[in-house]
Amino acid sequence: MATETATSIKKLPSLSGLNHRRNPLDENPFFHPSDGFYINPSDVILSQVTYDLSAQSQPRFAYHRAGPRQEIMYEPSAVKAAIVTCGGLCPGMNTVIRELVVGLWELYDVKEIYGIPAGYRGFYSMEAVKLNPKIVHDWHKKGGTVLATSRGGFHLNKIVDAIQLNGYNQVYIIGGDGTMRGAVEIFKEVSRRKLEVGITGIPKTVDNDVGIIDRSFGFQTAVEMAQQAISAAHVEAESAVNGIGLVKLMGRSTGHIALHATLSSRDVDCCLIPEMDFYLEGKGGLFEFLEKRLKERGHAVLVVAEGAGQDMIPRNDSQKQERDESGNLVFLDVGAWFKSVLKEWWEREHPDELFTVKYIDPTYMIRAVPANATDNLYCTLLAHSAIHGVMAGYTGFVSGPINGNYAYIPLEEVAQAKNEVNTNDHKWAWVRSVTTQPDFESKF
Amino acid sequence: MATETATSIKKLPSLSGLNHRRNPLDENPFFHPSDGFYINPSDVILSQVTYDLSAQSQPRFAYHRAGPRQEIMYEPSAVKAAIVTCGGLCPGMNTVIRELVVGLWELYDVKEIYGIPAGYRGFYSMEAVKLNPKIVHDWHKKGGTVLATSRGGFHLNKIVDAIQLNGYNQVYIIGGDGTMRGAVEIFKEVSRRKLEVGITGIPKTVDNDVGIIDRSFGFQTAVEMAQQAISAAHVEAESAVNGIGLVKLMGRSTGHIALHATLSSRDVDCCLIPEMDFYLEGKGGLFEFLEKRLKERGHAVLVVAEGAGQDMIPRNDSQKQERDESGNLVFLDVGAWFKSVLKEWWEREHPDELFTVKYIDPTYMIRAVPANATDNLYCTLLAHSAIHGVMAGYTGFVSGPINGNYAYIPLEEVAQAKNEVNTNDHKWAWVRSVTTQPDFESKF
Amino acid sequence: MATETATSIKKLPSLSGLNHRRNPLDENPFFHPSDGFYINPSDVILSQVTYDLSAQSQPRFAYHRAGPRQEIMYEPSAVKAAIVTCGGLCPGMNTVIRELVVGLWELYDVKEIYGIPAGYRGFYSMEAVKLNPKIVHDWHKKGGTVLATSRGGFHLNKIVDAIQLNGYNQVYIIGGDGTMRGAVEIFKEVSRRKLEVGITGIPKTVDNDVGIIDRSFGFQTAVEMAQQAISAAHVEAESAVNGIGLVKLMGRSTGHIALHATLSSRDVDCCLIPEMDFYLEGKGGLFEFLEKRLKERGHAVLVVAEGAGQDMIPRNDSQKQERDESGNLVFLDVGAWFKSVLKEWWEREHPDELFTVKYIDPTYMIRAVPANATDNLYCTLLAHSAIHGVMAGYTGFVSGPINGNYAYIPLEEVAQAKNEVNTNDHKWAWVRSVTTQPDFESKF
Amino acid sequence: MATETATSIKKLPSLSGLNHRRNPLDENPFFHPSDGFYINPSDVILSQVTYDLSAQSQPRFAYHRAGPRQEIMYEPSAVKAAIVTCGGLCPGMNTVIRELVVGLWELYDVKEIYGIPAGYRGFYSMEAVKLNPKIVHDWHKKGGTVLATSRGGFHLNKIVDAIQLNGYNQVYIIGGDGTMRGAVEIFKEVSRRKLEVGITGIPKTVDNDVGIIDRSFGFQTAVEMAQQAISAAHVEAESAVNGIGLVKLMGRSTGHIALHATLSSRDVDCCLIPEMDFYLEGKGGLFEFLEKRLKERGHAVLVVAEGAGQDMIPRNDSQKQERDESGNLVFLDVGAWFKSVLKEWWEREHPDELFTVKYIDPTYMIRAVPANATDNLYCTLLAHSAIHGVMAGYTGFVSGPINGNYAYIPLEEVAQAKNEVNTNDHKWAWVRSVTTQPDFESKF
Repeated sequence: MATETATSIKKLPSLSGLNHRRNPLDENPFFHPSDGFYINPSDVILSQVTYDLSAQSQPRFAYHRAGPRQEIMYEPSAVKAAIVTCGGLCPGMNTVIRELVVGLWELYDVKEIYGIPAGYRGFYSMEAVKLNPKIVHDWHKKGGTVLATSRGGFHLNKIVDAIQLNGYNQVYIIGGDGTMRGAVEIFKEVSRRKLEVGITGIPKTVDNDVGIIDRSFGFQTAVEMAQQAISAAHVEAESAVNGIGLVKLMGRSTGHIALHATLSSRDVDCCLIPEMDFYLEGKGGLFEFLEKRLKERGHAVLVVAEGAGQDMIPRNDSQKQERDESGNLVFLDVGAWFKSVLKEWWEREHPDELFTVKYIDPTYMIRAVPANATDNLYCTLLAHSAIHGVMAGYTGFVSGPINGNYAYIPLEEVAQAKNEVNTNDHKWAWVRSVTTQPDFESKF
Repeated sequence: MATETATSIKKLPSLSGLNHRRNPLDENPFFHPSDGFYINPSDVILSQVTYDLSAQSQPRFAYHRAGPRQEIMYEPSAVKAAIVTCGGLCPGMNTVIRELVVGLWELYDVKEIYGIPAGYRGFYSMEAVKLNPKIVHDWHKKGGTVLATSRGGFHLNKIVDAIQLNGYNQVYIIGGDGTMRGAVEIFKEVSRRKLEVGITGIPKTVDNDVGIIDRSFGFQTAVEMAQQAISAAHVEAESAVNGIGLVKLMGRSTGHIALHATLSSRDVDCCLIPEMDFYLEGKGGLFEFLEKRLKERGHAVLVVAEGAGQDMIPRNDSQKQERDESGNLVFLDVGAWFKSVLKEWWEREHPDELFTVKYIDPTYMIRAVPANATDNLYCTLLAHSAIHGVMAGYTGFVSGPINGNYAYIPLEEVAQAKNEVNTNDHKWAWVRSVTTQPDFESKF
Repeated sequence: MATETATSIKKLPSLSGLNHRRNPLDENPFFHPSDGFYINPSDVILSQVTYDLSAQSQPRFAYHRAGPRQEIMYEPSAVKAAIVTCGGLCPGMNTVIRELVVGLWELYDVKEIYGIPAGYRGFYSMEAVKLNPKIVHDWHKKGGTVLATSRGGFHLNKIVDAIQLNGYNQVYIIGGDGTMRGAVEIFKEVSRRKLEVGITGIPKTVDNDVGIIDRSFGFQTAVEMAQQAISAAHVEAESAVNGIGLVKLMGRSTGHIALHATLSSRDVDCCLIPEMDFYLEGKGGLFEFLEKRLKERGHAVLVVAEGAGQDMIPRNDSQKQERDESGNLVFLDVGAWFKSVLKEWWEREHPDELFTVKYIDPTYMIRAVPANATDNLYCTLLAHSAIHGVMAGYTGFVSGPINGNYAYIPLEEVAQAKNEVNTNDHKWAWVRSVTTQPDFESKF
Repeated sequence: MATETATSIKKLPSLSGLNHRRNPLDENPFFHPSDGFYINPSDVILSQVTYDLSAQSQPRFAYHRAGPRQEIMYEPSAVKAAIVTCGGLCPGMNTVIRELVVGLWELYDVKEIYGIPAGYRGFYSMEAVKLNPKIVHDWHKKGGTVLATSRGGFHLNKIVDAIQLNGYNQVYIIGGDGTMRGAVEIFKEVSRRKLEVGITGIPKTVDNDVGIIDRSFGFQTAVEMAQQAISAAHVEAESAVNGIGLVKLMGRSTGHIALHATLSSRDVDCCLIPEMDFYLEGKGGLFEFLEKRLKERGHAVLVVAEGAGQDMIPRNDSQKQERDESGNLVFLDVGAWFKSVLKEWWEREHPDELFTVKYIDPTYMIRAVPANATDNLYCTLLAHSAIHGVMAGYTGFVSGPINGNYAYIPLEEVAQAKNEVNTNDHKWAWVRSVTTQPDFESKF
């Protein structure tokens, strides 16, 4: 019952043209750095914490541990930091911005901090907003992003030109997977131009679809808020004769919100997510299940992730081509589609019986709320980890929790990793056990 | 400064074939009827409380005051009561049901109380549910209606046959304007058949569109919940570039929820209701206003009552004919229409500028919640007033607050009265002053 | 069924030395004063809306109806308004302040509006804060009072000197009964000095203990919030063996919050208020009732208004004399006293049985929240009514709803009137019926 | 950058007298056990995930990984399970109970499941309640524990006699550290008597003071609810002149709730916890800090964990001896003490200046709420992990997350481990940086 293993670390790029100096936290009246306060460059977080002791030992990976370093690479008075938020809203964006500002200011005495308005395009088409702790003081209590955001607008050269022109030497980029891929390009172009600019990404995805890190900020708040929609759907369904409550939850390519909201609520009869196939008609199909459920209980609640069943919804020619500003294929409204196919089905099968579908799309009511206490704290730790890493000279990285501890991860790795629901694992089995929904396997 | 006026009372039908007896509240251990406890049949509520002292005195109307009578007309052990809920959901329905059950049971010692499931059709097509205080104990904490509800299903003879067959001699009907018109017919048919059955209606309209009474139950809860949707729309709009937050609120023929929610929130830039005309293009139109607002503030919040602008939305042939189960013309989704015309407008006028419309339809999340404390208490008083009136032998009536006091009103009068927003009064002027929205008068 | 009655109006003092002029609302772009928009000086609200048609006709009183007058008495550019908040917190104070500022500014074009900080003493000991719509924009979303408040500090001459010195000619005083009595004195002194200063009071009492008006602002919000405390007490009681959940609610001399919260919750087993006598020991006493309830259900919830039982709590000598800044006898903590007598009783009677009392005092968590939507709207109408009255030249008055309509009431009348719970009426009987608590009459 | 380490596993006791059989999940219609579904007995979770790659390799520990085993040790139809809740309330208790019942029933087809009422004493003095999925269906939406709870009542022999007498062969014990120490004794006595009874503990501590596991259930909900109290204190303080808002939060020996609530809120000026020393008077003391803060901002918010400063509060003789039912020294009310010393201090130093302390103790309003979505899910995974472990034949263990993954930990180890706030780490430094409170070190 003992085993030997070898561990190798995922290295991070770092800025080379800067000088080392003592971390000003040494002199900060609120910190008394004791032994173990500063993180050594050789401190790591294991990427994997579960394994089979009886199995053959395998090479193991580790990431740099996040946190303050005894030596930093920037003269605080020479730092000029830029913060930008891209893509859709997510609870906690304002907390991240607030804590980047307050953290840079209070921990490292950085006074030149700028907010880039309206996403990537703000770099080259709008005027940056100077920020300080007083301005951002209450931002963590507001939903959305005070900096404003947008999709698209990614012009690599215009952005890097603007970084260069304005003299930003730290850039904090908050956004989704498309944004992170853009951040990788910015990081590479900045390196190519040999600019001493620290680039860090803070993944923002309410869908929790980013890989490697334990979870993304805002996700827990979203699951909490989704309960309200599911409860309403449940009430509507129960109060009707053959009532179906239909809730569409966020999740373009992953069903984490739908899954977690279903498990937390326990009022859901069927949960459909993008990671699974399903079918409507015939033995083992959705209609058969709903028919049975309506007969037994008189009502049913159906939760659908927005990306579920996209290939089943008929698309007209223009819909086959339309893409959003981030270049993603425009999603069709799976909730509206479901509402109509459910009605057609019932009308066909039970023309003389009452039937009601109440469709709730709580998306904007979920994503526009401020972060709850759990996410608020998480956003704070994320922002501070990012600051410590950039000040230490790391660049092209993301900070985030791995196995419960904060690590620095190569930006490129995060931009490519995907966190999908594993429909073969216990959690999904438990969803099925809670809902007793079919496995949709007899057809495939 | 003194004036003489004459007052005449709105008489109510009452059951004649029953015997008088003392109110059992005399013996109830929790009541000590003191002077003034019982309401005299001659006690009235003035229908009008404001008037001009200097003007010519005018005949004045009054309604019977609600409350317990010293003499009642039913032998409690002979009462068999039926309760039915019809139409859409509204916060507080379960409280009304609960209090009818608990009030009949605890106040008057009535033990035969039945819930009719699923609306009017339940009378003749489903089995009634026997209710008691234990069963309904927690219902006031649940949204929707545990009895279930449906639209339509109104077959007068089948319903009255069922009342007769089952021996119900008190019928409590909770529903909207269509339901109240049905209740009038039931009352008339019951009278025609000379059945000694007390019929009372409890108007349920989250839209607050019923006339004569001060307000309908659930309305205040709905206004409260609507704040959440408006806040989310505000956050979405503020976080975008040229962002419009669009919220559709309940209100088929009246804009009370939209109006009150707008006044309570103060984050709304424009509020459109069914009682007003408006237009989109040209001078003084909505687009001009929004254009200005976006230029000044970068965002705008638009609240639209569901019945606003129905005649402006293009209808195809089938939509011109489709009607819901209550016989109302099917409403088109004014929110979806607005979203599309706003996008077309911007695309046409500002093809190169960013623009975002986020549309929130919180309807089911609003109407499915339990009543708040204010509405909970209101529902209780409503239910008890109804019970006292029926026990006293009144029939064909509605109980409700008039000028802050509970009265008995002829059912037929309530079924015909409509409570519309007066766009010439101070409240609407104040909405305009809060929003600074145009008056849309230059065109008309 | 017709009767003749005479009505006489309660006259209000008004400023005499000012000139009439047209109301600027005539020119306001958001108002189109139509017939009936302006309120005539002879428009009244009846003080009583219920009466007995069969009884002898009695003289009837009426109040001036609130609302804008066609002629006003101030030149808007010459108005200098002061707003002050006194006493304890109440949900909605900030909404009232906000709407006074926004209403004066937007409706009447008044630009000189000052907030007096920290209550009455702020007039003579602190610097006033200049207010405008931008500053107060979000205040309705905040609890408490941004102007700050305090008790006491009432020095009549210092205050009126300050009014005179600063040239305030409109004074809006928001506060409780003590504050209103002070406002009467200010009004009289101002009259004595022949100053042309309009004085209006806005009663603020979360306890709802002010008479004449239908209810006071913040009260509904408080009842709503109290539900949370009662629910927690219920959970604590249910989860224990012989568990008692004890909640102290606001209400020094009246039990309205306790009563309404009890009716809304329906989880309360006993509700004690200042308007009723009760006793602990012996037949028909509280202990007997609780003993029975614990035996039957295993738990009980007790709601106590803070002013209940004050004469039963033993006071030491210093407590017999201590008074608060408003001159009121310091209240002893009835909750803490109850907790200890309940424990002593059980220990004495059932020394070997488990027993738990969980005492919750939610006072500050209730009164510090922002107003809910209902109260928010109410505060707006209150503030605007006050402005219209002052602009019309009335002084020494209070605006408030009577029988559901806004009226102007002599300040002195309001300062003296008291709204107590009538323990002989139906509402209290219904509390007893909900709780089945004893009537505590066998001893008296 | 590669290192070799040896890992040894923390073994768990297991039942030996039972027969192996296939896990019925194989046949469960909702599970399709695929590769990796079942956890091998040799699957482990590393106890430490962060380390210094450059340091000397050290022996490492690991715990058994939680989850279903391919072989189980109980014949489902022979299982008789008992569930008990002990100690104070904590959000999520009902979810844990619900999921134990539903999990045993649905996953393993166990039908004999009993709830022991009112804590340990319920084993020998009350009648157990038979539970099934229908009964517990909505329990996760209720605060507290439907089974009821109590402190003390631990009589080892009576309890084990009752286990034996009733034939329980699985015992699930939910409680705090005292309860876990009792569970160790039960486990040992059961082993001594050679009973084939699986004993598992589920640590319940809203204070999050249990060691080894990442966090305890209910903690996140408590931090969320604490925000409400801090907000109210903030409003009260801001609305007064020299106002102090004082909030006592749960935490007898650890300050996790106070710390997390302070970080989430950011409205707190000083946070005092049991793990730190502090002093009031003199240079660097609390009074000096508050004086400065009141001068600068006019108000301050103070958060105190209930166990902070216990040695500073004067105790009379009886208080020096009094202990609660769990044998802990009775805590004095640090909030009430603070309120009085703050008033004395101000009265002494500034006799002529206004000063207000508003003290809020939200304890019962926090701990009596249902679990939020995050905790609800956590409770589910905890309960299911426990079931899988017991069914697999483990005993004397606790299930809980370690580094984000669920593990089985020897009960004895958990009963002894303590999770204290490390006041030398970054999190506490960040609290100080958020609050700018003194370090209280100059005196020590």
